[in-house]
Amino acid sequence: MNTAVASPPPAATSPAAALAARYAGIRARSVALAAPLSAEDAMVQSMPDASPSKWHLAHTTWFFERFVLASQPGHVPFNAEWHYLFNSYYQSIGPAHARPQRGLLSRPSLEEVLHYRARVDAQVIALLQADALAPQACHQLLLGLHHEQQHQELLLTDIKHALWCNPLQPAYRDDLVHAQATATPLRWQDSPEQIVEIGAPAWPAHAAFAYDNESPVHRVLVPAHALANRPVSNAEYRQFIAAGGYAEVGLWMSEGWALCQAEGWQHPLYWDDALEREFTLGGWRPLDPHAPVCHLSYFEADAYARWQGARLPTEFEWEAAAAGVAPHGHFADADHLHPRGAPAGDHALLQLFGDVWEWTSSAYGAYPGFRPFAGNLGEYNGKFMNGQWILRGGSCATPDAHVRASYRNFFAPSARWQFSGVRLARDPA
Amino acid sequence: MNTAVASPPPAATSPAAALAARYAGIRARSVALAAPLSAEDAMVQSMPDASPSKWHLAHTTWFFERFVLASQPGHVPFNAEWHYLFNSYYQSIGPAHARPQRGLLSRPSLEEVLHYRARVDAQVIALLQADALAPQACHQLLLGLHHEQQHQELLLTDIKHALWCNPLQPAYRDDLVHAQATATPLRWQDSPEQIVEIGAPAWPAHAAFAYDNESPVHRVLVPAHALANRPVSNAEYRQFIAAGGYAEVGLWMSEGWALCQAEGWQHPLYWDDALEREFTLGGWRPLDPHAPVCHLSYFEADAYARWQGARLPTEFEWEAAAAGVAPHGHFADADHLHPRGAPAGDHALLQLFGDVWEWTSSAYGAYPGFRPFAGNLGEYNGKFMNGQWILRGGSCATPDAHVRASYRNFFAPSARWQFSGVRLARDPA
Amino acid sequence: MNTAVASPPPAATSPAAALAARYAGIRARSVALAAPLSAEDAMVQSMPDASPSKWHLAHTTWFFERFVLASQPGHVPFNAEWHYLFNSYYQSIGPAHARPQRGLLSRPSLEEVLHYRARVDAQVIALLQADALAPQACHQLLLGLHHEQQHQELLLTDIKHALWCNPLQPAYRDDLVHAQATATPLRWQDSPEQIVEIGAPAWPAHAAFAYDNESPVHRVLVPAHALANRPVSNAEYRQFIAAGGYAEVGLWMSEGWALCQAEGWQHPLYWDDALEREFTLGGWRPLDPHAPVCHLSYFEADAYARWQGARLPTEFEWEAAAAGVAPHGHFADADHLHPRGAPAGDHALLQLFGDVWEWTSSAYGAYPGFRPFAGNLGEYNGKFMNGQWILRGGSCATPDAHVRASYRNFFAPSARWQFSGVRLARDPA
Amino acid sequence: MNTAVASPPPAATSPAAALAARYAGIRARSVALAAPLSAEDAMVQSMPDASPSKWHLAHTTWFFERFVLASQPGHVPFNAEWHYLFNSYYQSIGPAHARPQRGLLSRPSLEEVLHYRARVDAQVIALLQADALAPQACHQLLLGLHHEQQHQELLLTDIKHALWCNPLQPAYRDDLVHAQATATPLRWQDSPEQIVEIGAPAWPAHAAFAYDNESPVHRVLVPAHALANRPVSNAEYRQFIAAGGYAEVGLWMSEGWALCQAEGWQHPLYWDDALEREFTLGGWRPLDPHAPVCHLSYFEADAYARWQGARLPTEFEWEAAAAGVAPHGHFADADHLHPRGAPAGDHALLQLFGDVWEWTSSAYGAYPGFRPFAGNLGEYNGKFMNGQWILRGGSCATPDAHVRASYRNFFAPSARWQFSGVRLARDPA
Repeated sequence: MNTAVASPPPAATSPAAALAARYAGIRARSVALAAPLSAEDAMVQSMPDASPSKWHLAHTTWFFERFVLASQPGHVPFNAEWHYLFNSYYQSIGPAHARPQRGLLSRPSLEEVLHYRARVDAQVIALLQADALAPQACHQLLLGLHHEQQHQELLLTDIKHALWCNPLQPAYRDDLVHAQATATPLRWQDSPEQIVEIGAPAWPAHAAFAYDNESPVHRVLVPAHALANRPVSNAEYRQFIAAGGYAEVGLWMSEGWALCQAEGWQHPLYWDDALEREFTLGGWRPLDPHAPVCHLSYFEADAYARWQGARLPTEFEWEAAAAGVAPHGHFADADHLHPRGAPAGDHALLQLFGDVWEWTSSAYGAYPGFRPFAGNLGEYNGKFMNGQWILRGGSCATPDAHVRASYRNFFAPSARWQFSGVRLARDPA
Repeated sequence: MNTAVASPPPAATSPAAALAARYAGIRARSVALAAPLSAEDAMVQSMPDASPSKWHLAHTTWFFERFVLASQPGHVPFNAEWHYLFNSYYQSIGPAHARPQRGLLSRPSLEEVLHYRARVDAQVIALLQADALAPQACHQLLLGLHHEQQHQELLLTDIKHALWCNPLQPAYRDDLVHAQATATPLRWQDSPEQIVEIGAPAWPAHAAFAYDNESPVHRVLVPAHALANRPVSNAEYRQFIAAGGYAEVGLWMSEGWALCQAEGWQHPLYWDDALEREFTLGGWRPLDPHAPVCHLSYFEADAYARWQGARLPTEFEWEAAAAGVAPHGHFADADHLHPRGAPAGDHALLQLFGDVWEWTSSAYGAYPGFRPFAGNLGEYNGKFMNGQWILRGGSCATPDAHVRASYRNFFAPSARWQFSGVRLARDPA
Repeated sequence: MNTAVASPPPAATSPAAALAARYAGIRARSVALAAPLSAEDAMVQSMPDASPSKWHLAHTTWFFERFVLASQPGHVPFNAEWHYLFNSYYQSIGPAHARPQRGLLSRPSLEEVLHYRARVDAQVIALLQADALAPQACHQLLLGLHHEQQHQELLLTDIKHALWCNPLQPAYRDDLVHAQATATPLRWQDSPEQIVEIGAPAWPAHAAFAYDNESPVHRVLVPAHALANRPVSNAEYRQFIAAGGYAEVGLWMSEGWALCQAEGWQHPLYWDDALEREFTLGGWRPLDPHAPVCHLSYFEADAYARWQGARLPTEFEWEAAAAGVAPHGHFADADHLHPRGAPAGDHALLQLFGDVWEWTSSAYGAYPGFRPFAGNLGEYNGKFMNGQWILRGGSCATPDAHVRASYRNFFAPSARWQFSGVRLARDPA
Repeated sequence: MNTAVASPPPAATSPAAALAARYAGIRARSVALAAPLSAEDAMVQSMPDASPSKWHLAHTTWFFERFVLASQPGHVPFNAEWHYLFNSYYQSIGPAHARPQRGLLSRPSLEEVLHYRARVDAQVIALLQADALAPQACHQLLLGLHHEQQHQELLLTDIKHALWCNPLQPAYRDDLVHAQATATPLRWQDSPEQIVEIGAPAWPAHAAFAYDNESPVHRVLVPAHALANRPVSNAEYRQFIAAGGYAEVGLWMSEGWALCQAEGWQHPLYWDDALEREFTLGGWRPLDPHAPVCHLSYFEADAYARWQGARLPTEFEWEAAAAGVAPHGHFADADHLHPRGAPAGDHALLQLFGDVWEWTSSAYGAYPGFRPFAGNLGEYNGKFMNGQWILRGGSCATPDAHVRASYRNFFAPSARWQFSGVRLARDPA
């Protein structure tokens, strides 16, 4: 692919310059993620929930054009017809191209989209370097960078699904790092009942970035409970399968059982039927028994926990545990793009951040006092607070420095194509 | 309909005799509810979510046969083939007739089902009178009575839908009581932050009946908030419609908006397009402006609240408010079978019980330490803890003495055929 | 069922009186066919293609009200709302109740429908006895009688499907006649190339009744070919199954193969998986090896013929063979309601009429010079000339004296619930 | 696009050399048709009925590999995994990639497919030049060339649909020839009843190529009738629309009307709602009133004919008329790729060949004595003889020298994306 990388960032000698550098870095990262893909690969949409890589590249650029550049005096749209194509779901802005048909867009070409990126980037960086953005535009730009990072993760999970759907099942990259892990015994970490502060102060009134759905900070009574020290491993999950977990109706939510039967689930997505190999972004590999199991739906995570006589943690239990922990872990920048086994060591709670998103038993909803972002961006998060479950902690495909303890990801319980795993919780005996 | 009423209850001179009397009364009530229906009416299934009246009559009887009588020595099944027909969803017991095909069951006839009821009732009452039931069987019998009451409400909501689907739109009964109400102004009742005890002790270990999903009692921190003194009225909801509420995408959950468009919703279920009349169990009637609006989906309740700058209450806010309130209200025994306006008077919170189920913003989930009922009845509630929202307080179609402050009803957010309304809540200014 | 039989026919001393007698007889026959059914049975609609018995009884009555009585001076509709309910597909008349929802009509009741029949019959018979019908009304009445006979057959095939769908699988009647047959060897009857006159003169210009789709008479060149002397038997079809016919893709039309896979066909509809019994209107019975196989789709009939190195006859080959044959055979009045084995004897072509409809290789289309019936009744046949195949000869469920050599029945190739079988044809060696 | 054109054909000094030249020419034509497309364009599948251009290029190549090269001694498959990807529907050969998912195949790339073409072509041409192909392989090669020409037409109709589905609606080519036509009055050409020879002798027993579905030659009695001298024009069809043809239920087949309502048809596919412009392979253009209307479904063609008091011709009427006419007309090689108005002149029947395929009233079926091609190629045509209608004469997108008087094309009645139009017929007054 003839990538159009944004110009090198300026030296960070001012806040605006620092922001310009950060902007350029994040934007270049998206292009780099698409670099292993042909224009044809970048166009595949393997299911309505997933989007083509090219669409991710264009939509994130549209976000900056629409929410940063469009408010600048004298802005001329790069291509008026593209507004329709690359609006995702902001209905208050106008109609958008139907999501399931994103894979039909042979035009604009990948090359045109990369040119579009370069032109938008040049304008944004010039504005930043001239310190010409009003505070509100700066805020929207910052939001756009977090937004872009979310799409970087989706680009990876979506292309993984697309390549797996092709009977040739090619690897995304042949040069990914990977290493086998050793076993870390499962231990339980007890917590007494306590009132905890949940959430993050509302941005941008408060300086640190957070999404609207993380606010306001509020007090929650978290009951006494215990958390597992690490996510469930492939070896453990394979025992569940061997014990007939996929055939035992009593372990499953009613809707999960129906889905399991209708789609013939016998194991996590991307495993082979022999339970020996899994499809990764680096192609087919032997299952690492000690790595966290991933590509589970909520239904599978929940059934596994029930089989173990345990349960999923609430998002509050998870956040209470993560509150004092630095958000370090195996993220996308480590270039594994697959979860790895827990590190050795005695730390009470391992892998809270990175490797796999952890399903919680908390339905996605509003915190008391929730206020959506102002204006059109109010559609960013709030309108999805129905029928989805919270996941916490980030994954091996999440950009470094993107998540935090208060970060709330959410997916439908049927979703399996994210790097989603499970950490057990249990009530006091 | 040639109803086969259970024999008159014995004098209540012992706990078992009292239970026999209660059993006979509740069982007779179901038959009475079906009495206005022809055998043909009792067979209609107007959508997969609803069941024919005959099926309700048979299934509740099967419940007693399977969970009470079947464990008695020497029990001979009344009709072995009917197990398959009248099992609802207890997959651990065996396969069941597909739910969407319940309306095809012309056999057994209504008459046979009523005979079945009479024969099961005779056996159960004989056992009770002989005090021959072991404690566990007594518990399952008691559960069966609560179960039967739930189906009494469903029988009413399902037949309402069935009659409305018929182009002739006949009334279920022509002799229902009804009276117009006067306006009660909306007032807000403030509550400070507090820790409250939520739920009920686990039955049957504890004597008072409660479903498994109401247990265990646990402490929840309820934030400061205000609750409306009464449910939203038809007049208020009509203002929402007049103001374009059904056309304002920004008020709606994403899934709700899609559903609203796909099905062309312009008003609550059962209203006419002129917004002047509504279909009731007594046929078409003028809308009573002061009566609580009902037959709202969660999506409509939520959009209305947002339009008002308010929100739905959590189930904990609701239960905290109801904790000290006797569960009195307009229930089914009053023979209105339609919600009525708030009574005059200064009581802070009116109509918490009865009239309309109140949607809450709480997703249906397990309380910490939740244990499903033992054995096959573990499927009763637990497996539906996904994709549904909690409603509280009972309705005009709920049997008297069925609900309580800790009672948790749950439906999918798209459900409109229940008597579901909305009470507003708001955060402190 | 409390049947409301039409009054006894007057003595046939005039053409109008004869028509009145015929009218009364045919109308009474429909009621008699429904007599073994409860009101509940008469309401079942087991698939969109089938209609409830009650609907057949009402629709055929509506036909006479709408096309005969409505044109009489001073006619007052019996119930204006029922026009909508019992119009089948005459869009030029007005909208009709959606076909797949006919099974939801608990009202009007079966009893009301039977009263409706009685009242319409009384008026029609009075008009006939008074010789008060204009010629056009007489024609429409006559058409209505043929129409009623078609619905008599559908009533039987639809209730058979409905009872079979019920897990209890009750018989329609326990008192049907049946007897085992003896084998009749398969022989081929050769025909040379010839020009034949196909079809019937247009009624009512010509006195003998025929549907519009049978006209005009026209000349067709029928090539040299041979026809089997009788329909394919159960024993022969069982050999096809044993030889793997349902697993051999090369025998099937592409669409038939897809359907066969999707629905898991392994044998004709109504056979058990052991290939030993079949469900009949008299309940489950052992398969009679010498009876004609029936309840085949076009796809199965066609695949069987191909497996035999033969083919289906064209409708012209069939009609040429039947032209000189009296339309006698095993029809519904014989009260078997199931096909029987060929009679002994040397007649060249056995069972052309009755027992099973015979699929032909002719797509349903217009004859050259085809003119639909005048007015609204133009919708009777013409608009279905797409995607259907012709069947010939009538079945064991067809009323006596209903079919003729030129009679064209038509169904979609997937249809299996009619008494449809197969007679082989082949080209000259 | 970096096209990999086959090597120049050898001088045609022998039958094998002539065949090699023809092979090279046809194969090069396919590549040339895809030349205006990017790799992304060549991957779009806009509906299950259509295939990506890349797939057409690969599948036609697979056809030669599988049916010509695979039978050569020592043949090594170019890529064993591609058999699965590029088999279309030959189930007797093995499973095939699901048709609706052809658009997900980013791999192999267009470049790889073009290399595949070049390698197969080199081997085939070498064999031809060495005169090393056995007669049967030569036959299959010849069939492969006709097959390739069919896919050349589909490539054009499929890419037209794909580009139109893209909201940017780009042209396939900007350099197409086009010219406005002048009006040619509609005249009727009468024919008396006659027996005609229909069809072509079976190839390869007979030297001239024909598909199996065109054989054997057989006698058909064609009744007296009249045919229009030219196809219906855009101006004429616009009158049908103006007269409310799309709203007049009485003109339509029942299934066609349902489809028309469900999909909101108001005009032919590719017309704008103002009825002034149409989308062509050259982009949006003003409607030429005198050009033949095209992109009609069977249902629209049939409804139009009925509105005119006429009907569609049978395929036999068409073939009888075309029997003595040289198959010349506006085909794809003229580089218009859009139908043009009738030429001036007195010839009785204009445009029988080329411009638009003409829907007939003949359902697609087998001729008496039909024998499918031997072996796996028996699946080529025969298994589709159900639910489709015959079209005759070829279109502006059909390669020159591909069609003939006996040629039978067939599509489902709902199909609109082919260049399908209508010529009227009528019965004698």
